[in-house]
Amino acid sequence: MFSRLFAPRVTAQAHCDLPCGVYDPAQARIEAESVKATQEKYQANEDAEFRARAIVIKEERAELVKHHLSVLHTDYFKAPHFEAYPGLHDLFNRAGKAASAAKASTDPATGQALLDLIAEIDAIFWETKKA
Amino acid sequence: MFSRLFAPRVTAQAHCDLPCGVYDPAQARIEAESVKATQEKYQANEDAEFRARAIVIKEERAELVKHHLSVLHTDYFKAPHFEAYPGLHDLFNRAGKAASAAKASTDPATGQALLDLIAEIDAIFWETKKA
Amino acid sequence: MFSRLFAPRVTAQAHCDLPCGVYDPAQARIEAESVKATQEKYQANEDAEFRARAIVIKEERAELVKHHLSVLHTDYFKAPHFEAYPGLHDLFNRAGKAASAAKASTDPATGQALLDLIAEIDAIFWETKKA
Amino acid sequence: MFSRLFAPRVTAQAHCDLPCGVYDPAQARIEAESVKATQEKYQANEDAEFRARAIVIKEERAELVKHHLSVLHTDYFKAPHFEAYPGLHDLFNRAGKAASAAKASTDPATGQALLDLIAEIDAIFWETKKA
Amino acid sequence: MFSRLFAPRVTAQAHCDLPCGVYDPAQARIEAESVKATQEKYQANEDAEFRARAIVIKEERAELVKHHLSVLHTDYFKAPHFEAYPGLHDLFNRAGKAASAAKASTDPATGQALLDLIAEIDAIFWETKKA
Amino acid sequence: MFSRLFAPRVTAQAHCDLPCGVYDPAQARIEAESVKATQEKYQANEDAEFRARAIVIKEERAELVKHHLSVLHTDYFKAPHFEAYPGLHDLFNRAGKAASAAKASTDPATGQALLDLIAEIDAIFWETKKA
Repeated sequence: MFSRLFAPRVTAQAHCDLPCGVYDPAQARIEAESVKATQEKYQANEDAEFRARAIVIKEERAELVKHHLSVLHTDYFKAPHFEAYPGLHDLFNRAGKAASAAKASTDPATGQALLDLIAEIDAIFWETKKA
Repeated sequence: MFSRLFAPRVTAQAHCDLPCGVYDPAQARIEAESVKATQEKYQANEDAEFRARAIVIKEERAELVKHHLSVLHTDYFKAPHFEAYPGLHDLFNRAGKAASAAKASTDPATGQALLDLIAEIDAIFWETKKA
Repeated sequence: MFSRLFAPRVTAQAHCDLPCGVYDPAQARIEAESVKATQEKYQANEDAEFRARAIVIKEERAELVKHHLSVLHTDYFKAPHFEAYPGLHDLFNRAGKAASAAKASTDPATGQALLDLIAEIDAIFWETKKA
Repeated sequence: MFSRLFAPRVTAQAHCDLPCGVYDPAQARIEAESVKATQEKYQANEDAEFRARAIVIKEERAELVKHHLSVLHTDYFKAPHFEAYPGLHDLFNRAGKAASAAKASTDPATGQALLDLIAEIDAIFWETKKA
Repeated sequence: MFSRLFAPRVTAQAHCDLPCGVYDPAQARIEAESVKATQEKYQANEDAEFRARAIVIKEERAELVKHHLSVLHTDYFKAPHFEAYPGLHDLFNRAGKAASAAKASTDPATGQALLDLIAEIDAIFWETKKA
Repeated sequence: MFSRLFAPRVTAQAHCDLPCGVYDPAQARIEAESVKATQEKYQANEDAEFRARAIVIKEERAELVKHHLSVLHTDYFKAPHFEAYPGLHDLFNRAGKAASAAKASTDPATGQALLDLIAEIDAIFWETKKA
């Protein structure tokens, strides 16, 4: 991953414009867990109807992951964060693409790859909250 | 609140039908935190445009709280849970009504009342997950 | 079903807070009819594309049923109703679970079971409107 | 209104392509009742927050009216219906515009005008169902 | 197609009520291009998962086409336009039905038929903008 | 703005995974035009109801801008594009923040600032399509 050397010095103002200032990467993570769980159930069940439903549901959940990631990227993180974490834009872009990849696959490894990237974002998020 | 005496004996099967088995009261809680934060910002800002936006946003967030609560109530909790927690139906109903009340009010106390009821649901949820 | 002995004595105030006071179980019923009709057409047509579409559409319709039921349960019915109809919470919970079951099945019997529970709710609804 | 002279001779095939064949103008009517009720409550309550909420809610309800009308117009009614009811396209267009007008107004007369046009559509709908 | 003889004489007022006056048939066209592209990819790929996803996605895109067409029909075009273009109501109805047909089919010819009708609407739209 | 020196050498593969490969910044632009037009109408009309509606509608339109931008950023643009256009991540982030700013303001200058950033994205988009 990329360097976090400058993280402690982030001096972005508190996020205080509406909407509300409440952000939590848990929202993206929970939906991504749902994506991965759906992939696992897809693999464990060969019923055609079940599998069709799994694909419909995974499509929705992965779309929600993308939405929650986009909100964090656009609305929570500010210019000073991106200066302190020079790889942060790229991390979000890879996470978004991982969500699209998990949408397009029933391999739980793609769901796990998405969760791993969200975990990286989560770590940075909480660092910046403490800063 | 109502008795939790029988909680340890809940023997509901693991929830394993699609959609996915991933549930977390954090989804309702985060949106409810957003409702309360929006109410607080409404009180702190007399600008008419800001207040109009706050009402629009709070409407959406409270609706999401209601959705997440309904999913927990309908899909996560099973008959044995309702037997073990005889007040659980009523708790969900009061939480849903509290979400409607917070929609209709800009008093942060209504947002807090909603959060308190979600905390009660959250406690039961995690008891049943351990059971 | 459960007793309706106390129904005539329900003295809940007219529902008059925004949103609007207009409720009608027909909304849930019409969507549930759509669920059942989709199941019937699924059974009558072996084309793979048709069946995939049927599953997508049924998913949406059953979700709308759940939403409309949740609105009735949370917003229309008040504490005095639940006292007068002690099984009402459970009826709504079973109806919501029946909607989830109809989502997960292409058997029209599950759609009919959902319609039967909505009919029970509908009967109580109109009793309370007359009260 | 326009002539219904040819209605009994409509020989459109039963609507039987997915989605499902279940249509009911009650869906548009119930949402339009909500629009009008919201307008009435707006007029009866001068509280600024209440009024802001009423406008948000009316916007949503009127949008749903437009959606339900569009589904009837596009999916339920077929070429033979439009031949039998030469003013039907125009009726739907006026109803859609009435929904937009009710969105843009808090005068309950606009809600009633919308309901009146839906009632005309409803009458034709049930004539064609019997045909 | 129908006559455009009276088009230059359309004297409808500029559309200036909220929402906003910004209309563009490109919105319907882009979604319809997505419908057709999805149909082409469906035909070119026999993987069952891929095809299930294609059907889910096409369903959404075709629904958006219907929504954008309905907005143009209801909100942009006014009575004088319908007088000047006597076939305009029917054109919109055929376009809406073509969107439903493309929803129900994986044949790219149905997507192209939809695009052709949107092109007719687009031509009239821009004529009326110039008028 | 940032350098486009390497644009002609972009060698990203054609975008050909579902969903569909159809992208067009016009989707974001049209919604942003709607945002700005709504701001202009807000300024030109002091009626309280009109202004409340304008805020509701602008909220929705700006949200759609954010969605369309996010799709382009996450799904259309690939690693080679980001290498060729080193400021592209930042441009998308500023455009997303401009959409949030236009949500929070009724000043048409914020709508125009959003449109200007979308125009920059549009220029790069079409360069990469030609490459």
